[in-house]
Amino acid sequence: MAFLKNAWYAGAWSHEVGRALLARTILGEPVLMYRTQKGQPVALSNRCAHRFAPLDRGRLVDDAVECPYHGLRYDSRGQCVHNPQGDGVIPKGARVRCYPAVEKYRVVWIWTGAPEKADIAKIPDFGFIDDSERYGITTGTILIKANYELLSDNLLDLTHTQFLHADVFKSEAVMRGRFEVIENGTTIHSNRWCPDAPPTPPLRLALNYEKHVDFWMNMRWDPPGLMRFDVGATPTGKPREDGVHNLEMHLLTPETETSTHYFWADARTYGINDPVVEENNRRALEHAFVGQDKPMLEAQQAMMGTADLWSLNPVMLQGDAAALRARRVLARLIGQERL
Amino acid sequence: MAFLKNAWYAGAWSHEVGRALLARTILGEPVLMYRTQKGQPVALSNRCAHRFAPLDRGRLVDDAVECPYHGLRYDSRGQCVHNPQGDGVIPKGARVRCYPAVEKYRVVWIWTGAPEKADIAKIPDFGFIDDSERYGITTGTILIKANYELLSDNLLDLTHTQFLHADVFKSEAVMRGRFEVIENGTTIHSNRWCPDAPPTPPLRLALNYEKHVDFWMNMRWDPPGLMRFDVGATPTGKPREDGVHNLEMHLLTPETETSTHYFWADARTYGINDPVVEENNRRALEHAFVGQDKPMLEAQQAMMGTADLWSLNPVMLQGDAAALRARRVLARLIGQERL
Amino acid sequence: MAFLKNAWYAGAWSHEVGRALLARTILGEPVLMYRTQKGQPVALSNRCAHRFAPLDRGRLVDDAVECPYHGLRYDSRGQCVHNPQGDGVIPKGARVRCYPAVEKYRVVWIWTGAPEKADIAKIPDFGFIDDSERYGITTGTILIKANYELLSDNLLDLTHTQFLHADVFKSEAVMRGRFEVIENGTTIHSNRWCPDAPPTPPLRLALNYEKHVDFWMNMRWDPPGLMRFDVGATPTGKPREDGVHNLEMHLLTPETETSTHYFWADARTYGINDPVVEENNRRALEHAFVGQDKPMLEAQQAMMGTADLWSLNPVMLQGDAAALRARRVLARLIGQERL
Repeated sequence: MAFLKNAWYAGAWSHEVGRALLARTILGEPVLMYRTQKGQPVALSNRCAHRFAPLDRGRLVDDAVECPYHGLRYDSRGQCVHNPQGDGVIPKGARVRCYPAVEKYRVVWIWTGAPEKADIAKIPDFGFIDDSERYGITTGTILIKANYELLSDNLLDLTHTQFLHADVFKSEAVMRGRFEVIENGTTIHSNRWCPDAPPTPPLRLALNYEKHVDFWMNMRWDPPGLMRFDVGATPTGKPREDGVHNLEMHLLTPETETSTHYFWADARTYGINDPVVEENNRRALEHAFVGQDKPMLEAQQAMMGTADLWSLNPVMLQGDAAALRARRVLARLIGQERL
Repeated sequence: MAFLKNAWYAGAWSHEVGRALLARTILGEPVLMYRTQKGQPVALSNRCAHRFAPLDRGRLVDDAVECPYHGLRYDSRGQCVHNPQGDGVIPKGARVRCYPAVEKYRVVWIWTGAPEKADIAKIPDFGFIDDSERYGITTGTILIKANYELLSDNLLDLTHTQFLHADVFKSEAVMRGRFEVIENGTTIHSNRWCPDAPPTPPLRLALNYEKHVDFWMNMRWDPPGLMRFDVGATPTGKPREDGVHNLEMHLLTPETETSTHYFWADARTYGINDPVVEENNRRALEHAFVGQDKPMLEAQQAMMGTADLWSLNPVMLQGDAAALRARRVLARLIGQERL
Repeated sequence: MAFLKNAWYAGAWSHEVGRALLARTILGEPVLMYRTQKGQPVALSNRCAHRFAPLDRGRLVDDAVECPYHGLRYDSRGQCVHNPQGDGVIPKGARVRCYPAVEKYRVVWIWTGAPEKADIAKIPDFGFIDDSERYGITTGTILIKANYELLSDNLLDLTHTQFLHADVFKSEAVMRGRFEVIENGTTIHSNRWCPDAPPTPPLRLALNYEKHVDFWMNMRWDPPGLMRFDVGATPTGKPREDGVHNLEMHLLTPETETSTHYFWADARTYGINDPVVEENNRRALEHAFVGQDKPMLEAQQAMMGTADLWSLNPVMLQGDAAALRARRVLARLIGQERL
């Protein structure tokens, strides 16, 4: 396995990055994050060039980080700018890797490839995150001990909601609904249209409506694992505007080959300023993500060990069509990087 | 190291297998056990053919197990019989491995080799297990973090009782007794005859007799690690019928190369309906097996790491004669499977 | 990586070795230590030659250790002297490795190379340890999950005290002081002379003096990791005899390639019979060694994984000069052993 290097990964939520030093392993590498005095996010290797001490145990001196072991200081570009020893000359090569880092959609994004290729325009659109007028927003982070592609498999095949999440999300409409996969460049869409069915309990609550509804679940995937979900319902036959919907952001950042930082955000059109709705929504999502998806994904990973999915010769079902295409796009992009 | 495949292994006690799904790793493979509505034991691979979810987290629908992740159902032969997606066609290859499983001597036995070679007649005789008229029976299961051959070494050389279990089983008769090893096909017998000695405390209690006794310890081993133990005593010079004895079943099932499911049963001729005798007997056995053998076996394994016994050039003692033959039989049988 | 074999390693403090069996892993090997009835320290392999049981779980019978599993007994030279089985003949090859062991400076030293090369004169001088008239002595043992060369790097470059131990030992004199590295055979000296500066809080307390002092920190290293530290201060311009000093012994014994038994002793010239001074001294040293050095060294090791320092291409600073020479001496000696 290999990771896609020339890509944006979610490094942290904006609110996590400040003047306190934050360490996180990303793509197997130790990353240090902080914010300059002017508020710019910084991402450096967390490993001092001298004796490999973890810089996050040091301290910020203005915008430079001071190593906790022997006091070398690195500026926000990763260049050593202070050597407290002897004549103070900065040794050649005394620098740590600097990752291009930008802030968008409440997230600090890190570019793990060639810096000159970093282009903020390559981050897919999650504009709804910034629309707090229209949406009530809930966010969370989960560390899952499974490869990130097992998470995108999960999110791109929502038939699993009918089994793994049956206690809350079961509806006979999902399996008989229309399933559509669209490939557009390196973007994959996995859309389900499920008309004329009793609403699931969360939809009944959100809509305050007991009769049949039409509902939809549209997932958009961009490499390496940046996903936008549009799920909603409207009374059967009515336009979507008469209904409710949630827009979600699911960002999958490999910690290692077998673990993933999973950043999620949910934006709902209903009860947007109601703390009870907010709390119920958070509980339902964490019940599904933490209580059901996480143990299943980790059990899958344990069953697979370090084997690649394809080497295990998996049976394919209709619902895998989108995940299969996403895996192919990713494999192609990773292959291109090796040329 | 390799395992003998064409062999019966104890998968579980009969009472463990029912309509609740039971998962256990056997020979490094994830196995699911349950019982059909008619009561037949079933053993399948516990790994769904689609995305490798653990089936034991799913549920039984009649005699089929439903995967907890995307709802594929497998019948008791391991064939997928229900696909909830799309047109419901069962994908080619949608099956999980089915292990021949039979029930005998209160145990569900699993055949890990070619199904057509599975023959219940190959299970060695442990008929005493079914004779609850004559015997009071105690059973237990212990997970030991050591290779199963270290356990058979232990059981085939009972001189260790004089050191490891000296607090309860010490008798000067063991070391001076007659030791006999018989090889009969693939069966090994390790027999000790220890005449005219003071009884050990357990024998004194069982016999209710203080004077000298003749006692015996006869162990029978069949591959891969199925052992029958006959241990008893009688007043010196009297026929064995005048004494007491215990018959034991020791079944060693590799979980992995360095861990073993150890199933044991003890059938005693004394106090067979007396709960105090039963409780004392259980305590004495668990003291020896769990309190003394298990830590020693695990320390041995830790000392050996992943090295094969022979690669460490062990010194041989007289008491190893039976274990040595058992190891040779097993190595020969495993070698034959590779041809 | 490889260890220097023909060398003395600290196996234990003298007070740890007695008639109770002591097990410790040294250079990746299981070592058993005890003392004969006449008081001689013994170091044997802790792994029985028969079935690799840990001998420390057995017992001493006079000066022989009896295996807890099948009762073989080994004398203090490692030779099997008793076989309880059969005719009692001692099998050829029934012995365990015996390490030359001597007692000096309150330490039981173990020689891990060819026995005929063991020469007690090769243990460097730590005579102050035996001078309890002149010194108040404190000792400790710390298990550190880091390679022992990371510890000698630490001790040979004391600029780290100005960052890692800044809360107690910060002084502007350290960085501007004179730094001298002397190589003498296989001995390395790393000396710092820091004149005319305010005393650090521990020196102020020890000297009971508030004005400027001259202070020194002289470290001596011998392979494989045996270090003597002389740290002291005197009122500026006065002879050293007017001041105070501490002499320390730092002995680094690899447990494995990534863990170290760290034995330390501190001998102070002040308050030598004062339990309050003793307690304060112990607290200050454990605060530095256990509370600050240990986590840093373990974090370094975690950052480096199993990689060799040089393979990571570290930046070199002036303060590394002594550690660099020590690493070269050690590499040369290890290389010579391979010829």
